[in-house]
Amino acid sequence: MPRGRPRREGADEQILTAARALLRERGYREFTVDTVAERTGIAKTTIYRRWPSKGALVAALIAPPPESSDPDAIVRETAEVLGLLSEPDAEAIEVLHAVLAPRRKLLSEAFGSELQADLVIGALLSRLLVVREPVTKELAETVLRSIRDGRNSIS
Amino acid sequence: MPRGRPRREGADEQILTAARALLRERGYREFTVDTVAERTGIAKTTIYRRWPSKGALVAALIAPPPESSDPDAIVRETAEVLGLLSEPDAEAIEVLHAVLAPRRKLLSEAFGSELQADLVIGALLSRLLVVREPVTKELAETVLRSIRDGRNSIS
Repeated sequence: MPRGRPRREGADEQILTAARALLRERGYREFTVDTVAERTGIAKTTIYRRWPSKGALVAALIAPPPESSDPDAIVRETAEVLGLLSEPDAEAIEVLHAVLAPRRKLLSEAFGSELQADLVIGALLSRLLVVREPVTKELAETVLRSIRDGRNSIS
Repeated sequence: MPRGRPRREGADEQILTAARALLRERGYREFTVDTVAERTGIAKTTIYRRWPSKGALVAALIAPPPESSDPDAIVRETAEVLGLLSEPDAEAIEVLHAVLAPRRKLLSEAFGSELQADLVIGALLSRLLVVREPVTKELAETVLRSIRDGRNSIS
């Protein structure tokens, strides 16, 4: 997912505005990209070129990736967004991907290590999906501390 | 999920045998706990007491938790099972939980650290769900190496 301002701001803004209204009206389950296309008159293929799935579009509305390049800030922000997604149902897998893929990319650039990004993002994800407990601020701090202490070895 | 041999082996074996046959006949999507209950004459509540979801029952069939208490062996086995679940769809979230919850528990006992278990299980999960690339043997070794090198600091 591209960072920074989108190139075709007009169409993107139109899509996001319609999508936001639709999400408010119908909620996630009843939200469809088809309806966004109908309401904006923008082709579905154009929408999917920018946001490859319903989950990606919804994620862009509820949680655009952070602007920061500071890993601590990114981890804290990620934990905060995941904190909103407690008790994820089956459909949430798409939203989780859409929320986490750009953040993992930012983190892997910030750490200079894909593995380290997977360890950090993964620890939060494991808490949410495997332990099925909410992702908290405290967890973000614990993970950050462990990564900071072991930075020379985990790379 | 309890480890070792189940207590009520008769009923458990009956359920597993019927479930295995049903899974072969119908595949995951068409598999229902209702049908297992009908075919065995065992109450659905009894089945759910032992396996709390369809995903847990299917996971018990395709991947019972490893017997080993060696963390390296558990991580390798977990990576192998996740390797079978490439391109997980929305329903897979239930299977992932059922596969990973008992393995995370074993690992957290083996490491003596829940955080370390979340980092390791999470790194595999991030690769699968966030990067959407297959979990490989090589990834398991890389994660194990990073954890071994940083063992004193990640705890």
